[in-house]
Amino acid sequence: MRKIGIVGIGHVGATVAHIIIAQGLADELVLVDKNPNKLAAEELDFRDAASLLDHHVYVHAGTAKDLADAEVVISALGHIELIEPGGDRFTELKANTPEVQQVGADLQYVGFNGVLIVISNPVDVITGIYQKATGLPANQVFGTGTYLDTARLKRALGDALHVDPRSINGYMLGEHGNSQFAAWSTVNILGKTAEDLVSYYNLDLDQVAEAARIGGFTVFDGKKYTNFAIAHAAVSLAQLVLSDAHKEAIVSHYDDRFNGYISTPAVIGRNGISAEFDLPLTDDEKALLQKSADAIAENTKAYL
Amino acid sequence: MRKIGIVGIGHVGATVAHIIIAQGLADELVLVDKNPNKLAAEELDFRDAASLLDHHVYVHAGTAKDLADAEVVISALGHIELIEPGGDRFTELKANTPEVQQVGADLQYVGFNGVLIVISNPVDVITGIYQKATGLPANQVFGTGTYLDTARLKRALGDALHVDPRSINGYMLGEHGNSQFAAWSTVNILGKTAEDLVSYYNLDLDQVAEAARIGGFTVFDGKKYTNFAIAHAAVSLAQLVLSDAHKEAIVSHYDDRFNGYISTPAVIGRNGISAEFDLPLTDDEKALLQKSADAIAENTKAYL
Amino acid sequence: MRKIGIVGIGHVGATVAHIIIAQGLADELVLVDKNPNKLAAEELDFRDAASLLDHHVYVHAGTAKDLADAEVVISALGHIELIEPGGDRFTELKANTPEVQQVGADLQYVGFNGVLIVISNPVDVITGIYQKATGLPANQVFGTGTYLDTARLKRALGDALHVDPRSINGYMLGEHGNSQFAAWSTVNILGKTAEDLVSYYNLDLDQVAEAARIGGFTVFDGKKYTNFAIAHAAVSLAQLVLSDAHKEAIVSHYDDRFNGYISTPAVIGRNGISAEFDLPLTDDEKALLQKSADAIAENTKAYL
Amino acid sequence: MRKIGIVGIGHVGATVAHIIIAQGLADELVLVDKNPNKLAAEELDFRDAASLLDHHVYVHAGTAKDLADAEVVISALGHIELIEPGGDRFTELKANTPEVQQVGADLQYVGFNGVLIVISNPVDVITGIYQKATGLPANQVFGTGTYLDTARLKRALGDALHVDPRSINGYMLGEHGNSQFAAWSTVNILGKTAEDLVSYYNLDLDQVAEAARIGGFTVFDGKKYTNFAIAHAAVSLAQLVLSDAHKEAIVSHYDDRFNGYISTPAVIGRNGISAEFDLPLTDDEKALLQKSADAIAENTKAYL
Repeated sequence: MRKIGIVGIGHVGATVAHIIIAQGLADELVLVDKNPNKLAAEELDFRDAASLLDHHVYVHAGTAKDLADAEVVISALGHIELIEPGGDRFTELKANTPEVQQVGADLQYVGFNGVLIVISNPVDVITGIYQKATGLPANQVFGTGTYLDTARLKRALGDALHVDPRSINGYMLGEHGNSQFAAWSTVNILGKTAEDLVSYYNLDLDQVAEAARIGGFTVFDGKKYTNFAIAHAAVSLAQLVLSDAHKEAIVSHYDDRFNGYISTPAVIGRNGISAEFDLPLTDDEKALLQKSADAIAENTKAYL
Repeated sequence: MRKIGIVGIGHVGATVAHIIIAQGLADELVLVDKNPNKLAAEELDFRDAASLLDHHVYVHAGTAKDLADAEVVISALGHIELIEPGGDRFTELKANTPEVQQVGADLQYVGFNGVLIVISNPVDVITGIYQKATGLPANQVFGTGTYLDTARLKRALGDALHVDPRSINGYMLGEHGNSQFAAWSTVNILGKTAEDLVSYYNLDLDQVAEAARIGGFTVFDGKKYTNFAIAHAAVSLAQLVLSDAHKEAIVSHYDDRFNGYISTPAVIGRNGISAEFDLPLTDDEKALLQKSADAIAENTKAYL
Repeated sequence: MRKIGIVGIGHVGATVAHIIIAQGLADELVLVDKNPNKLAAEELDFRDAASLLDHHVYVHAGTAKDLADAEVVISALGHIELIEPGGDRFTELKANTPEVQQVGADLQYVGFNGVLIVISNPVDVITGIYQKATGLPANQVFGTGTYLDTARLKRALGDALHVDPRSINGYMLGEHGNSQFAAWSTVNILGKTAEDLVSYYNLDLDQVAEAARIGGFTVFDGKKYTNFAIAHAAVSLAQLVLSDAHKEAIVSHYDDRFNGYISTPAVIGRNGISAEFDLPLTDDEKALLQKSADAIAENTKAYL
Repeated sequence: MRKIGIVGIGHVGATVAHIIIAQGLADELVLVDKNPNKLAAEELDFRDAASLLDHHVYVHAGTAKDLADAEVVISALGHIELIEPGGDRFTELKANTPEVQQVGADLQYVGFNGVLIVISNPVDVITGIYQKATGLPANQVFGTGTYLDTARLKRALGDALHVDPRSINGYMLGEHGNSQFAAWSTVNILGKTAEDLVSYYNLDLDQVAEAARIGGFTVFDGKKYTNFAIAHAAVSLAQLVLSDAHKEAIVSHYDDRFNGYISTPAVIGRNGISAEFDLPLTDDEKALLQKSADAIAENTKAYL
């Protein structure tokens, strides 16, 4: 049976749970949160919702010990209330770190040996903390990273060209944060390169990349949190694990070149990261990736 | 193409929109809300989310005029912040009435001629106000009513008997509010009647009915709103309309015996209520239904 | 991971496989058939099809040993070519029996301990043979029985009343064959009993029951096999097992009153039949059920 | 409401219908076939199947006049029984042409103005005949072309590299027939080009392209028809139309360079082909495309 756990049932965690229930993606879904009243309310709302659907997802509140035999655990805990409008995801680091260390230790204690998918921010750093705290092999712990930023890049390009984003290839690389960048050499739209887009469609690439980078903050400024897109990103990745898909996805995973977690594409399967591959980046892009890795390291020191 | 509109993008409206997007139930989805910043944020979050899915739902913010050719409009506007813990849905009536009258008038003005599904509370009264304001035939305007309360009854019974709620028949009738009641003569579980449940399983029927009746408040008390189950209820009903299902569902619809809106089962299809039918209720249940209709009428006078 | 096996990849087995792939209901799907060329062709066609879908089902040809750790195995083998127009499903018994005994023995040998769902005809007898051959507990082996006949009864009633079949309760009981019967005391449509249907709608109940009973032969006569509805019946039942649904369904399961397999409603969950319950049948219906059980026993002797 | 028609309910047409029903992709589905007994049998089997599903697809047999207001009509008629093992799809041309001309004339007569998706072979020629016979604008008539061959190329590459086919870009171009070719310059797998695949993975590109090209015949030889993958291809394309997806797909569409129908990528939306674009092919590939167009023209003369 497909068993998924979610730790942190705030706006993001609840939306992750809701997608799993609404799409019937698990047979058992365990919700873990430190606020028992909120957790009981969400559990009841979800159980009523689940009874209205055709498929059967057994959803219930639980604790770390219920996650021992989960195939996937998704960390959605966080302190988004600490982020200022237009702010930096690193603002959450200090508050999230001890909670993440506790959850990681609990998971290790109960013997969790599945894949841990991290949404909690700053995701590149938090994912690394989780990997150490759980003691899991690096391939079994990855973060949503720039998966959503990449989707935003494609959506912005799709809007500009009136083409479905799912017809566009390309990546936002690096930190899921301010130092991320559009790797234009990887962009391909119906056979057109980024240069073609500039010359044929008069596209302002910097503007498009900026729209992708700040997309999260536009949403955040209007509703004080973001949930729908990031939750779908996490659930998409969980599905790749559960079905052993061996599909490419850009996630924050351990990169020994930088001795840390950062987003580049990987192949996702039953054991998490099942293969890595080198993108043929330009020298400029390689430098930007290094710069982004440096920014993560510096921010970690500055904010922790 | 299947076009749905949602008026009121708060917790419930946004969740309704999310289900439609996540399950691919519309080709075009229009979001209407009086708060432009919140609306723009939700639109962007949804568009990013939609781009991560396999199906293609075109979601965008709009106004009443964009709803002219919608097949279904769902009203999710409300002032849940006015409700006290353990309170009464009528507390929202004064604030919701002028907004509902405006939306109804706008829908009439643009020539909307689809089906209007009302979640806004107190739903039995608000649905009636909508019907008058839109000038639509009564069959084209109905409310979620005790659809969710009925689901909660089945869930509570299912928990008690360790049987899936979808294997249980029965209804909560009357007001979607404090005067609703479990019509035990309609309950059938695997060939067992309510009396059988008492004699064989020692079930306390009053306790089960109370669990169904107060389910919404249990959720409300823990999270300050309810969204997932009620949103699925509304979307399920919208699907019956869009697919002309001619399926039975309990909704708040116009009943000339009471000259008002109240929940009893009906058959739902392309034109909303496509057929009604009389349940063979006991005399006690008939009296309780009358009493519930009276309570709606009295509360309407008291709160408006 | 959800692993399903199908034994017998003729029209029915291939359609069962197709539904599982098209709806993403398994993570691994094993196809077993004695004709290697046909099997290789279906495998390739399915693998191409699966690559066009959003979810990831790993489908491959295999043998009994690949079924050792399957949660569900569906038996769709058969010799429908032996059936004459308007004929009897018992015509297949002689040819199917040794094949079923071999598959059952193979499953026992490899240690299969999941749930075996039998479509192969005559299903009531074949399911019993499978149970003995596999040595599995009786609850883990059941047949589709009158699940589809019951759906046909509801569809026929729904057509007559212009109501969705999913709004109708009721059962075809007994043999999945000529001695089955509509248990009219179990029929309820929107609060109406079978007698109400006769008096209000002038319905000819015998005609409706006959339409349900011969539905399979109508399809068979036109296309020389039946596949779509029976395959959906089997897949629906498999889903109840995989998600531990504890939902009611009418299936052919062991009944010690008759010392054999016959269709009455049961509760289906992870271990197959998770609970049974007595329908409050009339004395006439009880006699018809006994008569149907006798017919199965007599036919078994006559045809084997 | 989403209305789809299918003309020709053989193995392929029935499977197309089944996918639409099983996935709930239409609200009304019309089946048209010249064999009334077969058609009635399929209709009944589908109606029984549909009643077992959660969504509501109204499926019924019909004639051309029922297709007048369909959004999409899919032509699946054909004479696959005329094809020899390892044979040529042009063998069907003579038999299919008059039937296609009749269906096209009928569609014109009833005023059909939706999108016509052609599976019937030889698809490049038949699609052109349909366009003339219906008098529809060229953008509203397209064929499945090398959509499936392209999927087979990706599947073959995915097998070789143990990567999900959905992570692979690239196209089979030209005729859906023996003159099609893999356009290796368009292939990209996780940042690797076709040359990289040769040098790093020692891949035999000709062998992979041949596996894609003959995939259909491998299936055909084993089961005497192909249905699952081609049906999913057609349904995927229909979904792009119904949801106005503006997504890229390779289909057989009119190309004025060749004054005929041939497969290159296009953008698919509500009106069929909503945009075209030039792939940056190599000179060799351009020559192969010309050669494939020539082959279609020559075969048309030879076989008609």
